[in-house]
Amino acid sequence: MSETVRHSEQGPTGPIFTLSAGPTGATPATLAALGQPVLYHYDPEFLELYASATKLLHQAFGGPGDAVILQGESVLGLEAAAASLISADDVVLNLVSGVFGKGFSFWARRYAKEVIDLTVPFNASITVAQVRQAFEARPDIKIVSAVHCETPSGTINPIDEIGPVVAEFGGLLLVDAVSSFGGMAIDPATWHAGIIVVGPQKCLGGPPGLSLLYVSEEAWQRMGQNPLAPRGSILSILDWRDADRVDRLFPFTPSVSDINALEACLRQYLDEGPPNVHARHRRVARAARAGGEALGLSLWAAERAICSDTVTAFQVPAGLDERALRADARKRMGVMLSGGQAELAGKIIRFGHMGPSAYPMAPVLAVTAMGQALRSAGFAAEIGAGVEAALAALDEPD
Amino acid sequence: MSETVRHSEQGPTGPIFTLSAGPTGATPATLAALGQPVLYHYDPEFLELYASATKLLHQAFGGPGDAVILQGESVLGLEAAAASLISADDVVLNLVSGVFGKGFSFWARRYAKEVIDLTVPFNASITVAQVRQAFEARPDIKIVSAVHCETPSGTINPIDEIGPVVAEFGGLLLVDAVSSFGGMAIDPATWHAGIIVVGPQKCLGGPPGLSLLYVSEEAWQRMGQNPLAPRGSILSILDWRDADRVDRLFPFTPSVSDINALEACLRQYLDEGPPNVHARHRRVARAARAGGEALGLSLWAAERAICSDTVTAFQVPAGLDERALRADARKRMGVMLSGGQAELAGKIIRFGHMGPSAYPMAPVLAVTAMGQALRSAGFAAEIGAGVEAALAALDEPD
Amino acid sequence: MSETVRHSEQGPTGPIFTLSAGPTGATPATLAALGQPVLYHYDPEFLELYASATKLLHQAFGGPGDAVILQGESVLGLEAAAASLISADDVVLNLVSGVFGKGFSFWARRYAKEVIDLTVPFNASITVAQVRQAFEARPDIKIVSAVHCETPSGTINPIDEIGPVVAEFGGLLLVDAVSSFGGMAIDPATWHAGIIVVGPQKCLGGPPGLSLLYVSEEAWQRMGQNPLAPRGSILSILDWRDADRVDRLFPFTPSVSDINALEACLRQYLDEGPPNVHARHRRVARAARAGGEALGLSLWAAERAICSDTVTAFQVPAGLDERALRADARKRMGVMLSGGQAELAGKIIRFGHMGPSAYPMAPVLAVTAMGQALRSAGFAAEIGAGVEAALAALDEPD
Amino acid sequence: MSETVRHSEQGPTGPIFTLSAGPTGATPATLAALGQPVLYHYDPEFLELYASATKLLHQAFGGPGDAVILQGESVLGLEAAAASLISADDVVLNLVSGVFGKGFSFWARRYAKEVIDLTVPFNASITVAQVRQAFEARPDIKIVSAVHCETPSGTINPIDEIGPVVAEFGGLLLVDAVSSFGGMAIDPATWHAGIIVVGPQKCLGGPPGLSLLYVSEEAWQRMGQNPLAPRGSILSILDWRDADRVDRLFPFTPSVSDINALEACLRQYLDEGPPNVHARHRRVARAARAGGEALGLSLWAAERAICSDTVTAFQVPAGLDERALRADARKRMGVMLSGGQAELAGKIIRFGHMGPSAYPMAPVLAVTAMGQALRSAGFAAEIGAGVEAALAALDEPD
Repeated sequence: MSETVRHSEQGPTGPIFTLSAGPTGATPATLAALGQPVLYHYDPEFLELYASATKLLHQAFGGPGDAVILQGESVLGLEAAAASLISADDVVLNLVSGVFGKGFSFWARRYAKEVIDLTVPFNASITVAQVRQAFEARPDIKIVSAVHCETPSGTINPIDEIGPVVAEFGGLLLVDAVSSFGGMAIDPATWHAGIIVVGPQKCLGGPPGLSLLYVSEEAWQRMGQNPLAPRGSILSILDWRDADRVDRLFPFTPSVSDINALEACLRQYLDEGPPNVHARHRRVARAARAGGEALGLSLWAAERAICSDTVTAFQVPAGLDERALRADARKRMGVMLSGGQAELAGKIIRFGHMGPSAYPMAPVLAVTAMGQALRSAGFAAEIGAGVEAALAALDEPD
Repeated sequence: MSETVRHSEQGPTGPIFTLSAGPTGATPATLAALGQPVLYHYDPEFLELYASATKLLHQAFGGPGDAVILQGESVLGLEAAAASLISADDVVLNLVSGVFGKGFSFWARRYAKEVIDLTVPFNASITVAQVRQAFEARPDIKIVSAVHCETPSGTINPIDEIGPVVAEFGGLLLVDAVSSFGGMAIDPATWHAGIIVVGPQKCLGGPPGLSLLYVSEEAWQRMGQNPLAPRGSILSILDWRDADRVDRLFPFTPSVSDINALEACLRQYLDEGPPNVHARHRRVARAARAGGEALGLSLWAAERAICSDTVTAFQVPAGLDERALRADARKRMGVMLSGGQAELAGKIIRFGHMGPSAYPMAPVLAVTAMGQALRSAGFAAEIGAGVEAALAALDEPD
Repeated sequence: MSETVRHSEQGPTGPIFTLSAGPTGATPATLAALGQPVLYHYDPEFLELYASATKLLHQAFGGPGDAVILQGESVLGLEAAAASLISADDVVLNLVSGVFGKGFSFWARRYAKEVIDLTVPFNASITVAQVRQAFEARPDIKIVSAVHCETPSGTINPIDEIGPVVAEFGGLLLVDAVSSFGGMAIDPATWHAGIIVVGPQKCLGGPPGLSLLYVSEEAWQRMGQNPLAPRGSILSILDWRDADRVDRLFPFTPSVSDINALEACLRQYLDEGPPNVHARHRRVARAARAGGEALGLSLWAAERAICSDTVTAFQVPAGLDERALRADARKRMGVMLSGGQAELAGKIIRFGHMGPSAYPMAPVLAVTAMGQALRSAGFAAEIGAGVEAALAALDEPD
Repeated sequence: MSETVRHSEQGPTGPIFTLSAGPTGATPATLAALGQPVLYHYDPEFLELYASATKLLHQAFGGPGDAVILQGESVLGLEAAAASLISADDVVLNLVSGVFGKGFSFWARRYAKEVIDLTVPFNASITVAQVRQAFEARPDIKIVSAVHCETPSGTINPIDEIGPVVAEFGGLLLVDAVSSFGGMAIDPATWHAGIIVVGPQKCLGGPPGLSLLYVSEEAWQRMGQNPLAPRGSILSILDWRDADRVDRLFPFTPSVSDINALEACLRQYLDEGPPNVHARHRRVARAARAGGEALGLSLWAAERAICSDTVTAFQVPAGLDERALRADARKRMGVMLSGGQAELAGKIIRFGHMGPSAYPMAPVLAVTAMGQALRSAGFAAEIGAGVEAALAALDEPD
């Protein structure tokens, strides 16, 4: 008889409260689905489950386009979208308001004739006027790539306004909505979106390992006409079109257990009701901002209006080490927060409130643990005031 | 294809924080053990697991006596102990400092010649002097029944002191340590205990459904000599002696899945190290008391010194409805607390901090949720101060 | 980081095929329910789940009486029924066609004025004529206790015929249907049943640890009028009446995780459809009998007509050691079978086909493993013929 | 309250016996690991788990090179290896004895200066003499790509012999051992392997979704010197070097739950002991071959000596539809088998016996279910004889 599973330490801090920028934890129902038997991918039950997951995803996107699942974490979806959609003669307008927007430029340059980066400071958002201006300056722009929620900055770009302008100028819009989808309302039709890339490990509360794509008919056509669009590759989107049809073969073995979990996540999302889920995120985001500010921190975003409902970034007080702060919050109080990445490394600390972690008590947990850590580091954090502010904000009207 | 599992709602409040007086939740490792295949009870693997659980329980008790598992919630263990140990010609001294002590009197009277209830107010504890006095008045007392932690009151009786006096007068001690075992140090040898009854669903963090008994050699002898001690009954302790021996038949089918979970709980307890576990409970209990008081509540216990490290009872402020308060804390903030029972119904509210729920953030959660509920009911709760006090108390020296 | 769960060895034999007389394994859906968080028993979600389990059980019983859950393995239900229903002035007719019927006599004698055992050989069944005769001889019989499926013998008593006769003579019928319920049709109304005791760990495929009772209005009245019916005891049925009502307190903490699993089992049973479930059992039982006989074994039951659809008993060939045979089947091929108990110890070997273990391949597994074991012991088992016979029997018309 | 998990139908056929060519099911211990909480990927516990998984994988490979995990099903590992290792001026010798070898040619051609396919019939194996000949003809061959177990054919190429020859001629060997690793002994040192690609979903019994790579120092150097080796891409191997070091950032979010499961799978593999695991596969493979032949089928492989121990391919009898046969076996008996792919579609049926599905009863299940299906289709399958032959083969000496 052997011991074969390593489990979490449940020592001094007890449960782990994952309030990170994603993965964000999973509900008991999702964990139960994850732990179901691993079926053969052509087992009739799995085929039915795969079709169900695709159908529920289509329903969750809510647009006229198709839902496609790629078998790799959402960076796969983004890289695959760049590789498939951007032809060698395309001019791409890439909107950069943060680390992810900047990162996409790297992929876009690999495939495009030219990439125009429209860059704003990483605590700001792109405006619709800037996009219009860009098109007026360069009417040959074919593709616009944008990030809805800049997870590293905790900021939102106004895709609801930008999308129609892109359409007006005949551009095709590719959106990274990985950390907003499931936590904020998105509408592929309003956006006139070509491809939207999301993932299960943020507001849906699933495990990382899949990319979930919305693909419009126009995007399918462009990819179909792109001679360099990957086929016979993990980077192919075209290969996975209609993979949910039971009469089709999978291009390769799909990630069975991740699909099990995805299907459960989508059911929970649709059962709770997207408007209810979004209201829950708004409410908790408001409390996270208020709580952090009352604690003594400053929002990273230049304006409150561009803050995301799914993740809140605060500036790290001068002279403090964000890694040490987060390690302390995790070790003493069991709360796992996120720091900054790339250009923002060391500058910000983030409270995630996505999917299963967007609950009323979450800001209290984040404020308390961060407050304890700040005090240890010599910063006079106002924990009591922070908790009170978070609670008060929960009950404010939307 | 069907949907066959009902899962927790994960709506407005998100996760459920079970900070009750028990069951107290379970770690992921325990849930994983619970969800293992249900084996036949004579499967060689299950026999080995049963033996392992018994051995680990013996190790956790730490005394010279035997560990015995009964297949029913800990009330079974208590009723069975009364039925088995108390002969028709026994005089029983029953120590009553709360609802459970009083309740045991009911069982003791069913089997004893005479039961002497030594009763103190339900916010106080029995003293060793009272026990000595009782023996001096009635040297014919044969059995002393006591409750270590009066769960309904959140108070502790000093069994460390009482046990030696019982032994000095030749009595046999029967202790209900259901809600203290696993959260506070107990020593069967110091206690000179005959039978100690505990359960998995409190500080061990298991599911309810089993009774865990410590039985001394003397207790076995007394039960063996008691002609009315149950045999061929669910109330029999004698039937289950040595049931862990692989060459023995079980008296009836043991609760396979509960045993799976118990074994996992005991491993976790022993792996963390009992002294560490007990220190964790002391620390969190201190924070719970301090937090609740700073919130504006008064401890139920007459003195701080008799407060349990596993559950804290507060008086319900005058005019408030404890059921409504707890319902509000559960509904709005996801925190499940306990109320009062029997004589204490409506009078107290309890924060449990047992096993998996004895973590540093637990008092913060309890104070916050109760504070919100109190405010809704018109009571001016000081949540910020309560959180601060809880945090400060965590860091006080023992 | 620690390792805290012990898991099944998955060595030479791979998965364990539990084809015992119960527990009988559990579906992935049931295991998922078992592994859900352990809630406080007064958590609103658990209250709702408890009420749901009770309602589904009522639906599964299908009779006019109440469904009541007791918190202990089904022997608790049987002992409690004896203790509650049998008054000190009652004459009980106890039908004995096997080990369980004989065992019930022990409990009945504890409470009755007189117990008349109507005994037939343990490979036969009670006839309705015998019951009528007994009543004619002793019209003062008040209670008739019967076993529907004598699990140890694999035989069925014709309760459908006996029940009406008991009612005709004004008797109250108490039935042990532990190993038939969920695998064979039972009808409390046709039976005129007072109390029926069943359990989750047989044909429902749950973990052992609960007793599930059907209680008619007349049975409630009798228990209510019985001054010695247990109250304030684990043996009380009366205490648990209406425990599913959310406005009622539980007599003591119910077995939360077992209830979680029970609810899932009942949903699966009702979703599959009782007639479908029963047909599945009939089919598999037919194959088990045919397979075992073709293997070279003889049925234990005197007549095929009285064989249960849930468990099949075969005679152990002369000179062979059934424990060694079963140990061999388990060790080499991973198949766990049952042996005989008490009077039948060493004489029979049983193939269980209950609930999750009543699937078409089960008789093939049992025949193959037992055949291998028989050959090791020197018995010329016809495995190939046994498998063929089992398969042929599967496809025979009902 | 909602129902959010879809579970397997447990109707007429009961449990699903996954005896496919992979995924191959998972043990209860692996499923328990899969269902553990989804942690943030920078949570200290996850970092430790990731490091542990990498270390155990290194131990399981047993060679001097590094173990690297890529976050996508094993086709990712193969495509990434082609992209990373094959420079634009490399001549590649690609060994083709089946569908997978042929498929690799597609990727090799994308990156190589020239690809020489050494092709044999798909029921045969490459010989070491052929490889030597190829090198003698073309001493400019730099890279040799080979498949150890041609899963679609159920055949093995003698990499133990081929590897040294490749090394002798200064070539670098890239091996697809996806379906042999964990079921048959492989030795990276004997092979002089540069890169070996395996996956968790075959003989390790994990979920699909990861690629597991063995990378030698020489392979690292070649990839480092290849200017076109992917970086900043899901296809990059270089990016993931040393990703297990806690002081390193992950290139992107790893598949947390898949890593949890992988770690558990590797522990089980190492705990059982690789030589024991391999012996188990040999034994079951022997039984699968014997059973299928006695049933009336013919092995696909031209010679018994080249049959894999992990999967057995049989020819589909003339005139029969393999899809219909497998659908019947799945529907009536719950056994999920695999068919043929690409060139072999419709021609073969495969019994998988990998990892958790390599148990003694597996060939009995496969033979029985396939036999039933064959009979339904009018083929006179000898099920009894097949079962007997399988059992007899189990006990033959190695």
